[in-house]
Amino acid sequence: MINNFCKKPLWECSQTLAAVAQGRQPADTVIRGARLVNVCTAEIQEDVDVAIAEGRIAYLGDADHCIGENTQVIDAEGQCIAPGFLDGHIHVESSMMGAGEYARAVVPHGTTGIYWDPHEICNVLGLEGVKVMEEDARRTPLKAMITTPSCVPAVPGFEDTGSFVGPKDVAETMAWPGVVGLGEMMNFPGILGGADHAHGEVAETLRAGKVVTGHYSLPETDRGLNAYVASGVRCCHESTRAEDALAKMRLGMYAQLRYGSAWKDLPVLAEAVLAHDIDTRFAMLVSDDTHPHTLVADGHLDHIVRTAVELGIDAITAIQMVTINCAQCFQMDHDLGSIAPGKCADIVFLDDLESLQVTRVLIDGEVVAENGRATFDLPPFPFPAWVTHSMHLGRDIAPESFAVDAPEGVEGAVRVRAIEIIPGKVGTFETHVDLPVTDGRLESDIEQDVLKTFVFERHHETGTFGCGFVKGFGIKRGAMASTVAHDAHNLLVVGTNDEDMALAANTLAACGGGMAVVADGKVLGLVELPIAGLMDALPAEEMSEKVHALEGAWAEIGCTMPSPFMTMALIPLACLPELRLTNRGLVDCTTFEFVPLVVEE
Amino acid sequence: MINNFCKKPLWECSQTLAAVAQGRQPADTVIRGARLVNVCTAEIQEDVDVAIAEGRIAYLGDADHCIGENTQVIDAEGQCIAPGFLDGHIHVESSMMGAGEYARAVVPHGTTGIYWDPHEICNVLGLEGVKVMEEDARRTPLKAMITTPSCVPAVPGFEDTGSFVGPKDVAETMAWPGVVGLGEMMNFPGILGGADHAHGEVAETLRAGKVVTGHYSLPETDRGLNAYVASGVRCCHESTRAEDALAKMRLGMYAQLRYGSAWKDLPVLAEAVLAHDIDTRFAMLVSDDTHPHTLVADGHLDHIVRTAVELGIDAITAIQMVTINCAQCFQMDHDLGSIAPGKCADIVFLDDLESLQVTRVLIDGEVVAENGRATFDLPPFPFPAWVTHSMHLGRDIAPESFAVDAPEGVEGAVRVRAIEIIPGKVGTFETHVDLPVTDGRLESDIEQDVLKTFVFERHHETGTFGCGFVKGFGIKRGAMASTVAHDAHNLLVVGTNDEDMALAANTLAACGGGMAVVADGKVLGLVELPIAGLMDALPAEEMSEKVHALEGAWAEIGCTMPSPFMTMALIPLACLPELRLTNRGLVDCTTFEFVPLVVEE
Repeated sequence: MINNFCKKPLWECSQTLAAVAQGRQPADTVIRGARLVNVCTAEIQEDVDVAIAEGRIAYLGDADHCIGENTQVIDAEGQCIAPGFLDGHIHVESSMMGAGEYARAVVPHGTTGIYWDPHEICNVLGLEGVKVMEEDARRTPLKAMITTPSCVPAVPGFEDTGSFVGPKDVAETMAWPGVVGLGEMMNFPGILGGADHAHGEVAETLRAGKVVTGHYSLPETDRGLNAYVASGVRCCHESTRAEDALAKMRLGMYAQLRYGSAWKDLPVLAEAVLAHDIDTRFAMLVSDDTHPHTLVADGHLDHIVRTAVELGIDAITAIQMVTINCAQCFQMDHDLGSIAPGKCADIVFLDDLESLQVTRVLIDGEVVAENGRATFDLPPFPFPAWVTHSMHLGRDIAPESFAVDAPEGVEGAVRVRAIEIIPGKVGTFETHVDLPVTDGRLESDIEQDVLKTFVFERHHETGTFGCGFVKGFGIKRGAMASTVAHDAHNLLVVGTNDEDMALAANTLAACGGGMAVVADGKVLGLVELPIAGLMDALPAEEMSEKVHALEGAWAEIGCTMPSPFMTMALIPLACLPELRLTNRGLVDCTTFEFVPLVVEE
Repeated sequence: MINNFCKKPLWECSQTLAAVAQGRQPADTVIRGARLVNVCTAEIQEDVDVAIAEGRIAYLGDADHCIGENTQVIDAEGQCIAPGFLDGHIHVESSMMGAGEYARAVVPHGTTGIYWDPHEICNVLGLEGVKVMEEDARRTPLKAMITTPSCVPAVPGFEDTGSFVGPKDVAETMAWPGVVGLGEMMNFPGILGGADHAHGEVAETLRAGKVVTGHYSLPETDRGLNAYVASGVRCCHESTRAEDALAKMRLGMYAQLRYGSAWKDLPVLAEAVLAHDIDTRFAMLVSDDTHPHTLVADGHLDHIVRTAVELGIDAITAIQMVTINCAQCFQMDHDLGSIAPGKCADIVFLDDLESLQVTRVLIDGEVVAENGRATFDLPPFPFPAWVTHSMHLGRDIAPESFAVDAPEGVEGAVRVRAIEIIPGKVGTFETHVDLPVTDGRLESDIEQDVLKTFVFERHHETGTFGCGFVKGFGIKRGAMASTVAHDAHNLLVVGTNDEDMALAANTLAACGGGMAVVADGKVLGLVELPIAGLMDALPAEEMSEKVHALEGAWAEIGCTMPSPFMTMALIPLACLPELRLTNRGLVDCTTFEFVPLVVEE
């Protein structure tokens, strides 16, 4: 695949590189005395110099002859150098930051390239929104490679979103210079069922010679997974059991082992590699969704590599999983993913292979981060007004809006379907609970940890909403609201009482979206996310503090789960099992049918 | 890279594959009960069925549900199945057969795809000749993927060829559906020197998103090799020492370990893999040049894989080297190189992993060979007359044509440069020998095993020729001639006396080219090669017999080397070290200068 993410295409500078390698022309930069993590042969090579010109690697070896008067010389002092880390599946929006600030946060952790499915912004603001985000990213050295969102909406017919993407849109975006493939094909039911829409999007991507990324979250690894892989999907980050990941690799699919802020599948998935003596070239490490606190406190891919090593995966193997394996998955290994002549000089310095701390990062031959700080400038990005005004509810929300009528004539208790969340996992269970009827209505039941949940459409002022119940947050009082509510990002409200639910909802309606926690008529925590109701333009540290404060508010009302707002935000995501709530109602995501709130026995 | 070598692009049949995988539609073919050589994970999986539709793999597992009334069921009876073998670097012309007959010879040995640099035919007949050869290949199921010859002539300015290829031609061919890359860039001096011509050809290939294949034959693996790799060359088959291959892999270049009929580098190169605990994904096995006798007696890639295993390379690793590694090198792994859903159903049956005998071959889901015989039809190919009339000497050749005058006034002996051949290697040495002066002339000296050698231009009737001496064939009488004389394929004559040399030359001039051995005024052996003076349209068995007879004739006059005619044919190849003879004269191939015959002391 042609790579537009470089200082200069190789064909415009091959003569210069050949001259530099042979000492006929000085290098722009020379790294001296490094321990090279060679991901091509999976070896450490001692005392290697790297000569760089035109943003690319010209020479590996003893580079005395490449140093001229104006050559910048970086003494590696025996530190390790590895290829820049590549995240094969990521949604920048989950960081709650604009792409520019996101880049500033992750680059110091060794991330030099991301394969980004911007489907959050696309669900709210369409492909025009993607273009704005891309523009923000382009101001930074981070290689933000776009995969066109395939599932906008995520599950057509089951929710209302701000936009729509179809095969024609996919075909059009394949000509965009920043687009390298198709974003996660969450519509696996469409693929398995042979739907024209889903297969059409895949077709337009393959026809353009680009890569289809996947999302297959069923535990069925036989006929369904075969059908999914046979349809042209090349990678998938939705493994939750070691056997899922192993099955994918055996079918020639890249298994992207995930370790994000909320869904931490890696410890389980590592067994796929550790318990079997297999070639690991089809394994990758990805973050999927990372919130700002994780980025600030733990890091990004560096943190995931460290975790993989702690779990017992060999350090070089783990580094291959975020470098060459990823580049080969996207067929961009001729430019990215290894420290080798001709490749982009995207290089990560690591103090050693034990602690794996990133000390310096180069992208296209330029030092872009040192000692944990980005060294590139990033002036504020002028987001247009239509991006920062995305709350279009078209209705007032009051406590009465949250009334849930019990079936007529029923007294005592009613058995309802509830969405049972699993902390740290993207899946949910469908569970049935008996709720008492109070004045002809169904209310949250704190004793049973069952809370009323509403999703209000917020893109086209349709006034539609869905209601249901969720179990497992441990909330004792108050309410939470969020416009980060995958993937349609409608207004999601969960709470113990109608007054607080209305306050939480209206707080977000007033500030342009975000995440709020309220109790007893007071706002305890608020993260304003004016950019599409998903992000703010603040740096990671500030966002992290705000989110940390929000987590404090969650704890204050009774929930001590890690990143509970991320788990909450998946309540409407109807492409994941088992039961979900959208603005159109409760969806059984194993059969893809709307189901009633009340269980009919 | 878009792959035109399939029954149908995946995007036109993904819905069918998904339906077949799930049993909604019957498979065209089902293979039952195979031991799957899984090159993705490097494992053997027992008792696997493979369901095939539209020429592609739809499903791996227990495929009962894929079998319908009209499904062809093949019982593997516990045999192994591996992906079809891919030869990453090959010149069909070396087999002395047209591409159709070549396919019929190699497919039964498990070869389903070749990356073919047709530079022999191109040197004689230009890109129009390549098109004819390609047409011949297209009549067969073999996936004959073309890499546009980059070096026509091989070393510009040092020889005269029938054609010329430059950057514009390369750019034009990149749009041909059968072209997947650039053929071996033998002009490494041009690459290292920054020549516009060589870099321009590379540029046009990279700009088209295709792969540049290499030929770097220097023992220098530092600055020169770095410069070569940095210039965008992705693979190289010219390693003759283990350290060459290792250096290439460490620089992220695919090392193609060669085992052809005459150049058998693999036993030495295997150490690169065996003596180092490295990731082998950058290693491939290739044949480069194979003559018909080898194809008939030993096989093709199957023979090379068996040899690798005998040398100690793990069988699955060796199979990876002719499947997935090669497909990844050419960035065609989304369609070729593994048995996985969605991939082309190119499948080789092996009796077991010990004997590695190929028993059945499928290409695009069709059985194309069984028990060593191709099962596809191949009517004779109508080669046009301009292809079969390529001898354009423009002069008569007589015994007197072979006179070599001694320097004026010199008596006794003269010290001359001689080309010393190395049996079974592509390299030569420059050696100096003292030749007696007889009647003011220099003659062959059988005692010293030094023979007179001439190269006559035969494409444009220029009448030019070069003369020199060669050492090492062990010939005691007679002479040999060949129009297979790399890469310009001028008329090459080596002999002990002028009369026999003239007879050998004129025998070939009369029959349209080929290879001849004569002695004492009689033709002892003759292989007619009327197609461009390089090939005949006969099947492998017949060609093998003819070549075998020719080898007999070589032995009759004193040479018992294996395939001496292949070593002889390299005498004019000025892109290989050290000393070569073209129609323009003696070339020092380490400095790329013409040198005089007589050594001036």
